[in-house]
Amino acid sequence: MTQINLKENERLDELQRNGYSIIQDTKRFCFGMDAALLSGYAKAKPNETVIDLGTGTGIIPILMEAKTEAAHLTGLEIQPESADMARRSVAYNHLENKIDIVEGDIKDASSIFGASSFDVVTTNPPYMINDHGLKSDNEAKAIARGEVLCTLDDVLRESARLLKQNGRFYMVHRPFRLAEIMCKMVEYKLEPKTMKLVYPFVDKEPNMVLISAVKGGKSRITVEKPLIVYKEKGVYTDEIYEIYGY
Amino acid sequence: MTQINLKENERLDELQRNGYSIIQDTKRFCFGMDAALLSGYAKAKPNETVIDLGTGTGIIPILMEAKTEAAHLTGLEIQPESADMARRSVAYNHLENKIDIVEGDIKDASSIFGASSFDVVTTNPPYMINDHGLKSDNEAKAIARGEVLCTLDDVLRESARLLKQNGRFYMVHRPFRLAEIMCKMVEYKLEPKTMKLVYPFVDKEPNMVLISAVKGGKSRITVEKPLIVYKEKGVYTDEIYEIYGY
Repeated sequence: MTQINLKENERLDELQRNGYSIIQDTKRFCFGMDAALLSGYAKAKPNETVIDLGTGTGIIPILMEAKTEAAHLTGLEIQPESADMARRSVAYNHLENKIDIVEGDIKDASSIFGASSFDVVTTNPPYMINDHGLKSDNEAKAIARGEVLCTLDDVLRESARLLKQNGRFYMVHRPFRLAEIMCKMVEYKLEPKTMKLVYPFVDKEPNMVLISAVKGGKSRITVEKPLIVYKEKGVYTDEIYEIYGY
Repeated sequence: MTQINLKENERLDELQRNGYSIIQDTKRFCFGMDAALLSGYAKAKPNETVIDLGTGTGIIPILMEAKTEAAHLTGLEIQPESADMARRSVAYNHLENKIDIVEGDIKDASSIFGASSFDVVTTNPPYMINDHGLKSDNEAKAIARGEVLCTLDDVLRESARLLKQNGRFYMVHRPFRLAEIMCKMVEYKLEPKTMKLVYPFVDKEPNMVLISAVKGGKSRITVEKPLIVYKEKGVYTDEIYEIYGY
């Protein structure tokens, strides 16, 4: 076991994958099922490079390193404290040669890394439309959850620029913005190719949508079989256990 | 029972609603679950007027007359033989004062009826992209199924023109065209407001999508709980029995 010095409010959580762990700060945004599901939905082949936009504590690149054969993964994060935690998690898991954590703004991503520089983009962006200003007394959480520092438009525009032609885009988002998501994706030539709705229960509205796109792809989407999270209250379905890798 | 003279290949099918029946031609396009589901998904309040674009045998206006309190329903159909069957079904069910069947082209719908002339538009349009020409040896079925005589763009453009501001649009279509559907709806200011995916089985890809829009509405869609058709092979779920009204 590697020695680790945790800062105040930090804890080390096991990821049930390759023995990896992640540092999280209980006062800041901690990863949820969305990030776990996205890391299972996104595919990366050997020799492919991946960038995760708004990586937070680095959960998606770390899980994708375990789940895929991606050659290299980059996580871009604007909040210094989150980027610092992500870097320490990468080091703790001995993944410095596979994962880079870069501190920077999604809005500048294609300037930082250059156009057409990645095979795959993943993102679990802020979901909420920021039409009320920065109201939360917890700024770190507000930035992670709402469109305070970047909008859906920024994320999609920069994703399209970062991707090579025929490169793949994977995002998790909330269904209530689906029309906007699809229209903006098409506008930026990120053609939606697959979509999976995540229903907490079989008789409830979905609360997440997983969507993939191909840069420059043709118009035709496969809506996949539903992902149902709970068989009954407190009991995950087999598919969720599989994705979590228990 | 009203006397009825059926033509060659025609049959009279009971609709399990208000004692209504419909004339169908076994050699032509017969209505499917899509039309039945759409007529249950579409809402019309008292005093509202409804137009069904591409009404075929009139199945949607006839079912909606039974299921809603709509003041008046119009069915527009380009194929004379289908329009004739629809008219005879309307007469057979004594609905001449409630339902008009008009023979005409969807592409001219707003010229025929005038702009902003309906509260509700329903449509079960041809699903297939017609990029292979008219190949089927059955022209009537080809017109009903593929974009031979009108495209998705025609249907959405004319629907937007026909609707009053805040009027409602209801369509059933195939999920593989969802990105195109949503982008074109937004383009024509038919803002998607609800969507329901129809999964044949809980562990299968959806094969239909029900979608509603409000003309001039704000961007926010509710993706509804899934509609699962079969509990097990050959056994409908309770929700399907409810919609069919057994």
